[in-house]
Amino acid sequence: MKRLTVDLPGRAYDILIERGLLSRAGELCRAAVPKACRLFVVTDSHVGPLYLDRLLPSLERAGFETAAYTVPAGEGAKCAQQLSSLWEAMMDARLTRTDAVVALGGGVVGDLAGFAAATILRGVDLIQIPTTLLSQVDSSVGGKVAIDLAHGKNLAGTFWQPRLVLMDPAVLGTLDDSTFADGMAEVIKYGCIKDAAFLSWLEQRPSRREIMEEIEHVLYTCCDMKRAVVIKDERDTGERMLLNFGHTLGHAYELAGHYEKWTHGQAVAAGMVKAAALGTALGITPAGVAERIAALLGCFGLPVAIPCAREDYTAAIGLDKKGAGGSISVILLEQAGKAIAYPMEKSRLLEELA
Amino acid sequence: MKRLTVDLPGRAYDILIERGLLSRAGELCRAAVPKACRLFVVTDSHVGPLYLDRLLPSLERAGFETAAYTVPAGEGAKCAQQLSSLWEAMMDARLTRTDAVVALGGGVVGDLAGFAAATILRGVDLIQIPTTLLSQVDSSVGGKVAIDLAHGKNLAGTFWQPRLVLMDPAVLGTLDDSTFADGMAEVIKYGCIKDAAFLSWLEQRPSRREIMEEIEHVLYTCCDMKRAVVIKDERDTGERMLLNFGHTLGHAYELAGHYEKWTHGQAVAAGMVKAAALGTALGITPAGVAERIAALLGCFGLPVAIPCAREDYTAAIGLDKKGAGGSISVILLEQAGKAIAYPMEKSRLLEELA
Repeated sequence: MKRLTVDLPGRAYDILIERGLLSRAGELCRAAVPKACRLFVVTDSHVGPLYLDRLLPSLERAGFETAAYTVPAGEGAKCAQQLSSLWEAMMDARLTRTDAVVALGGGVVGDLAGFAAATILRGVDLIQIPTTLLSQVDSSVGGKVAIDLAHGKNLAGTFWQPRLVLMDPAVLGTLDDSTFADGMAEVIKYGCIKDAAFLSWLEQRPSRREIMEEIEHVLYTCCDMKRAVVIKDERDTGERMLLNFGHTLGHAYELAGHYEKWTHGQAVAAGMVKAAALGTALGITPAGVAERIAALLGCFGLPVAIPCAREDYTAAIGLDKKGAGGSISVILLEQAGKAIAYPMEKSRLLEELA
Repeated sequence: MKRLTVDLPGRAYDILIERGLLSRAGELCRAAVPKACRLFVVTDSHVGPLYLDRLLPSLERAGFETAAYTVPAGEGAKCAQQLSSLWEAMMDARLTRTDAVVALGGGVVGDLAGFAAATILRGVDLIQIPTTLLSQVDSSVGGKVAIDLAHGKNLAGTFWQPRLVLMDPAVLGTLDDSTFADGMAEVIKYGCIKDAAFLSWLEQRPSRREIMEEIEHVLYTCCDMKRAVVIKDERDTGERMLLNFGHTLGHAYELAGHYEKWTHGQAVAAGMVKAAALGTALGITPAGVAERIAALLGCFGLPVAIPCAREDYTAAIGLDKKGAGGSISVILLEQAGKAIAYPMEKSRLLEELA
């Protein structure tokens, strides 16, 4: 079993990675939340039927009472109405302050259940069991939890670190190729922003099959980078911004597709290529980097360019929650494997993108 | 001007107390949130018409853009639906991470606006301008923010310290006697739990007129006690519990009256008398303390006993969010002016109350 510790002062927690871990979740949760009587498991209508009957008995063998709550699969569940229903269901289940919430699913379930855990009774313990590649390498680690508003994604939320993150790579087997590729966009992002050697390593394994043969190493490497960034900048006011490489433009593409046409991973993929090209135009990113990233993304069927009207760029940049006043920090690559935050006037950024 | 500093590490903030402060809010807010461009003011349909036209010009003179959002007066506004509407309105107003929210009103407005501030864009700065005696001495200080759920009050929320608390005692002049008395229940509570001399001082001023003559001293004394408790136990896991004297039973009374018949202050008043009598029955509180508290509460027209069925006690105790498992910490008085947390089996507590 691979183990990483996110060493936040007073709230350190482990990320555990091993095939088959789901069936041993009970004993591992018991060690993480020794005082809890009840575990309130949140999942969705895709993941629940696949894995609840493996998870719940393991939790019960470890002496927990359990309650399971299933939200409809898809981004639509990350809304205020579902949050409110979840709060009420948690009280129906007589959750107390010493109990805990378990998020079993992808990023939507983790973000929604995490926000509910952070706020029910002013905060109860949270255990993340991410079941997609995207949530394993990204959203389950670091404590960002949120719901979407009409104005955009993740606009209402908080920071709430889990007590434990359990990753069972075996569950990735049930993902379709497109969902697997969404996760690969973030995996490739880590190589781009922090680790040139890992980027090269990925380029030597340009298929799902090859990645899955060494998936524990992939998860460990990505989570280790995220861990390092999070402990330096938990509240996302500095270095953590670098994780947003490709994301500001990605938001524009999600908006252009009305959050339906393009997944988060697809939008980020095209956003990274565009951000690399932007960096080259500004004299910051060496020529050829955008093409190199595009080639690797293309191996996983990810789009490397997405049509986007000026209005969508405007809206995404103007409303981006990282933006303060008239300027915005764009994450650019000084080289493949090294990202920097580059402050630009929003108006100038728009010109460069047009 | 009286000034208290709530000296939390890295997030110290001032409580400022002076008649007429509302008209100087702009300059004081500017010093507290120097980077903010916009202030999003949340108020209610009672308070807004009285004070917005004094507050907003002051904020604008200090260079802030302002937006005002009015919720219906009353506890009903502390709900998930209003929270959701408030989040959307904040995004409509193009609030950014460096802007701030101002809560102008009583506890309902402070709790709702505070929870929205804590969660919009994962948290923006908050300034509390409490306009009732209850919110001035209690809810505006200490960072507890929440909404109510169907199962009870304050069940979803978080901890979010303000950047500044502005108290203008002049605004208390527009309160009706019953609302003023609600605040007096909490004022008297501070004497009971922490300060015998203050309790005696209050007994020598048993009327609204006499209290208002020295209101700055009353606000300062109460907020100073709350401040001292909050900096020792921000997250409410130890000493802060003492502030709940009268509150567990108060919750039962609020429940018995379906949150309509009795205000929070009235329920807490009767809860304190009952808790003092309970302490005497258990051999912890000296005889006569309950009568002494009842006499003082009665001077302000507060109820000293509220009829309550066993089912309401059961429900309130069973669901009380401080409760963990089968036992509950009841706050009792060792003497007038000194509270302790007293762990009891819930079943035993019920017997004693019956």
